[in-house]
Amino acid sequence: MRRVPRAPRRPRSGAQRLGWSRPPPWPPGGCLGLPGAGCGNGRPRRWARPPPGGPCPGGCDTPSGPARAAREAGRGPAGAGRGAGRACAGAGGHGAGGAAPRARRRLGAAAGADGPPRGDAGPARRCGCPGGAAAVAAGGGAAAGRGDVAGSRPPAPGGDADGPPVRRAAAPVPRPVRPRPGRLRAPGAGPRRDGRGAAGAVQRGLAALGAGYCYERNLAVNPQGGNTGLVGGSVPVFDEIILSTALMNKIISFDKVSGILVCQAGCILEKLNEYLEDQGFIMPLDLGAKGSCHIGGNVATNAGGLRLLRYGSLRGTVLGLEVVLADGSVLDCLTSLRKDNTGYDLKQLFIGSEGTLGVITAVSILCPQKPKAVNLAFLGCQSFAKVLETFTTSRAMLGEILSACEFMDEKCMELVERHLKLSNPLTGSPFYVLIETSGSDSTHDADKLNNFLEQAMTSGLVADGTVATDAKKIKTLWSLRERITEALTHDGCVYKYDISLPVGKLYDLVMDMRARLGQSAKNVVGYGHLGDGNLHLNITAESYSHFLLDAIEPYVYEWTARHKGSISAEHGLGFKKKQYIHYSKPNEAIFLMQRFKAMLDPKGILNPYKTLPTSSEGNMH
Amino acid sequence: MRRVPRAPRRPRSGAQRLGWSRPPPWPPGGCLGLPGAGCGNGRPRRWARPPPGGPCPGGCDTPSGPARAAREAGRGPAGAGRGAGRACAGAGGHGAGGAAPRARRRLGAAAGADGPPRGDAGPARRCGCPGGAAAVAAGGGAAAGRGDVAGSRPPAPGGDADGPPVRRAAAPVPRPVRPRPGRLRAPGAGPRRDGRGAAGAVQRGLAALGAGYCYERNLAVNPQGGNTGLVGGSVPVFDEIILSTALMNKIISFDKVSGILVCQAGCILEKLNEYLEDQGFIMPLDLGAKGSCHIGGNVATNAGGLRLLRYGSLRGTVLGLEVVLADGSVLDCLTSLRKDNTGYDLKQLFIGSEGTLGVITAVSILCPQKPKAVNLAFLGCQSFAKVLETFTTSRAMLGEILSACEFMDEKCMELVERHLKLSNPLTGSPFYVLIETSGSDSTHDADKLNNFLEQAMTSGLVADGTVATDAKKIKTLWSLRERITEALTHDGCVYKYDISLPVGKLYDLVMDMRARLGQSAKNVVGYGHLGDGNLHLNITAESYSHFLLDAIEPYVYEWTARHKGSISAEHGLGFKKKQYIHYSKPNEAIFLMQRFKAMLDPKGILNPYKTLPTSSEGNMH
Repeated sequence: MRRVPRAPRRPRSGAQRLGWSRPPPWPPGGCLGLPGAGCGNGRPRRWARPPPGGPCPGGCDTPSGPARAAREAGRGPAGAGRGAGRACAGAGGHGAGGAAPRARRRLGAAAGADGPPRGDAGPARRCGCPGGAAAVAAGGGAAAGRGDVAGSRPPAPGGDADGPPVRRAAAPVPRPVRPRPGRLRAPGAGPRRDGRGAAGAVQRGLAALGAGYCYERNLAVNPQGGNTGLVGGSVPVFDEIILSTALMNKIISFDKVSGILVCQAGCILEKLNEYLEDQGFIMPLDLGAKGSCHIGGNVATNAGGLRLLRYGSLRGTVLGLEVVLADGSVLDCLTSLRKDNTGYDLKQLFIGSEGTLGVITAVSILCPQKPKAVNLAFLGCQSFAKVLETFTTSRAMLGEILSACEFMDEKCMELVERHLKLSNPLTGSPFYVLIETSGSDSTHDADKLNNFLEQAMTSGLVADGTVATDAKKIKTLWSLRERITEALTHDGCVYKYDISLPVGKLYDLVMDMRARLGQSAKNVVGYGHLGDGNLHLNITAESYSHFLLDAIEPYVYEWTARHKGSISAEHGLGFKKKQYIHYSKPNEAIFLMQRFKAMLDPKGILNPYKTLPTSSEGNMH
Repeated sequence: MRRVPRAPRRPRSGAQRLGWSRPPPWPPGGCLGLPGAGCGNGRPRRWARPPPGGPCPGGCDTPSGPARAAREAGRGPAGAGRGAGRACAGAGGHGAGGAAPRARRRLGAAAGADGPPRGDAGPARRCGCPGGAAAVAAGGGAAAGRGDVAGSRPPAPGGDADGPPVRRAAAPVPRPVRPRPGRLRAPGAGPRRDGRGAAGAVQRGLAALGAGYCYERNLAVNPQGGNTGLVGGSVPVFDEIILSTALMNKIISFDKVSGILVCQAGCILEKLNEYLEDQGFIMPLDLGAKGSCHIGGNVATNAGGLRLLRYGSLRGTVLGLEVVLADGSVLDCLTSLRKDNTGYDLKQLFIGSEGTLGVITAVSILCPQKPKAVNLAFLGCQSFAKVLETFTTSRAMLGEILSACEFMDEKCMELVERHLKLSNPLTGSPFYVLIETSGSDSTHDADKLNNFLEQAMTSGLVADGTVATDAKKIKTLWSLRERITEALTHDGCVYKYDISLPVGKLYDLVMDMRARLGQSAKNVVGYGHLGDGNLHLNITAESYSHFLLDAIEPYVYEWTARHKGSISAEHGLGFKKKQYIHYSKPNEAIFLMQRFKAMLDPKGILNPYKTLPTSSEGNMH
């Protein structure tokens, strides 16, 4: 077994490491609203010492406490993380797999003396800041690592003894175990803690061993890939042991005849794509975070991205998985077959389960041929109805070569021009559409695209447009779409929502929200994956405002539910959105999910506090 | 509620209705090896009266009894079904969604005075006869319907009290319930029984009601769509109530912008396709059985077919399901969204579960644009290596317009020419490849195809070839591939296997089997979906032979397992193959499946005896 080199010594104060210049501004008497933490199910529950991060010194006993406190947790440390003078100018951003990691790094550097942002879960749910509740958790973890709470009882993963079985601890949690240096401690991205809340980059066998080890000792585990998720699914909440897949980075096999790649879970998406491009293939998914994200994490979160319109979701392209279950046993479903109808397709349950049902350690995935020709058209439309018609016309006329159809409104373009000084080649249109074709013959593709453009222009669907065929110009045009998130962070405090809706209703929510908020919002913008019915609704304000937040939520979720949409199209629920699952799933489905969780992870040690609501949260709506 | 007209009175004798001229030739002292039936787990279990169909009059007590008896069951009635003079010339056939239903109808007519074949589960697992074990069940059901065993206790769906929880009866099964005429009895395809084992074509609300009704009374339910399955998954084994989806045949909505169709489960695939074609779309799957099969059944069996290479599996294209669970509750996951990452994707568990976890009552599915141009090339290759290279070249050069890649060996062509008098436009090649393109521009597609053919011919990959562009010629060429199954039925007794393998190994099994069997087999042929790595291995003999069967099995399954293939690529396991699941799935996976089954259907009332092995069968391998 390869020994993992010891991580360099880091400052141990959570506050220092998160760049806090003052204690986190918890609401007086509030708590994180986490099961087993400051309060559970609305009833008082005290700690021997304050829980990591310091929330809920006195517990709370109001039924609405957890929910309200969770909101506070989402916004509190964000402001703190940016220092007192600048409450909100969040990092990361989504951008449909846009420029999130780059933006995050950039902002980390900009934070300067405040220290690098850690536990960054991407754009905060509320105000676009790095961290949010998850960052708190990282701070808490560091505090735990200091040893001053080493003797305290770690938060039990279970709920109430008479509640639903999900996350119920089977037995009192024994004293915390400190992993041996070099065994579960390793260099890796994301939050990392010494002592009990340790980061571990482990190999496959060790993952199984580690999981079994944790299961026996009732230790909670936080599986972590590239830690590029945006809803806090990959960061620990309390003192979970981080099980990183970083060392599971081997390509096991690639079959050029079938196009099937088998690799370990820790392989970085971009590296896989580079490997495949040498063989004339590409990965069936593409994300802005591709330089950091792991394929295991992509599968665990059912990542969407830019190629979904063309190659479909991971539910169709992932052919097999190897998964370590909560008890440490290995479920080997790592087949490399396009067709296999022998029994239930178990792997599907782990795709998109955000590490709450098992730790994905290897993936078998079907990869498409690398397209020989790529064209990009950037078009201006006078109404959203014309945007929709442009999309349907492009699908009819471009057919098999249509590989992306994105849209953005003029507010997005204004922000990109104003804050990033990018040049918009078109002006005067309230909507812009970006259409990409990928095919095997450049002449044919250009012909099809020209025919489509001619049709679109003559029928008045498109008011103006430009086409790029060379790589540099294509990249420039794509940056107009990909860097919207970055531009938003410069516009002030950002409230971000990732919504799936029937395509026809996609922009109604933006207009509705714009009318509803009026002058209380600085900008209300909408952009997203038109072909997938995926809207990124972003609302900016000069600074964070309770009033504004209450005007947005739960209205935005109710609106989405009313139109049979999804409150999380491609980001998952993680820690930040789990309590809103009811807006998109009926109670029967949630109850069934909880039963699956209880069955596969009876002690609730796998990525606790994520994806599914606890019983108290479950009764919110 | 619409009242279902009473079905016309039919002959009640199972023997008459199956066309048996003499009692089924059960092995002396043998039994079906079904849980709760003649024997369970190798221990004697007697019936007050013999179970339907008459097996196991004395029970058995040898550990290997159930397995061996199940084999006997598979072959016994097949021979009987064809009459004494002609043991095996089975119907149905698979043909990758080929000409199965037509062949079945044709053979039904050919059976003449023997009566129409009922309970036909397609090609028999052993010898290509209609029915097999499932046909026995239909006969048994008919016998039960006669009333002579009406007072006997129906077989308990549960297994041993101390075995795994799957199919364990929670309580003694109460006296049988006879559905009211016109309520659960209706005209419908497939086996149908009066009295206890009644066919029911019901509407959605009634499906929920019916399931709850059955759950309360511990009555087993056999969900049934078009009854075109090939492994006996849609036919009752004993006296299950058949819950037909035939009346759930409404199209709920179709969105031309997104291409998403929402419909009830009983819609016939071909009718859906016709509806969509009028709107410029097609269904993402195409099967030979499309004229009869229901979309609900397609989803429940995760049907593959001819368009899988292009549009992917149903796991990617099915966006939502409405499912009635065992207890009668309705699980509404009928979203029409391409992206929805809110919690676990529960619908995936029901896709391919063959009705053992829930009854699918409505489906939401993503439909592709109808291609404007279709071309077909029929090519001859001198070796399988060249077949593989032809496939990879076609994928590289045809790229996005490649929509099917099928192969067949010269033996297949010989049979098609000899028995069906079809004309093979090419001769002298040991292998033939059928390549279809579907695109949005006929000129472009023709260009691409010509370039590919030129490359294939000049590089010596292809020895000879012909191309079709008009619909009639395309149909003629397709029939060479689709009617292979039909030709095989004329060649004698057929042993059929539907295998998934890594593409490079696809034909090795055929050659290996040919060498192994030598003169004991009449023909060993291989054909299938090259692009999907799906081989249809068929072995014919003059008559059924124990010796030949023992030479084939379990060798063929062991060979498949050794090469990490699947013993059922697209047909599912149903009743016929459930005990062989171990060759394709590890014990941990099977155990997990059994836990899912036990959780979702604790009384084991949903399609019992299908898909998963019982504990005794589970220890076979």
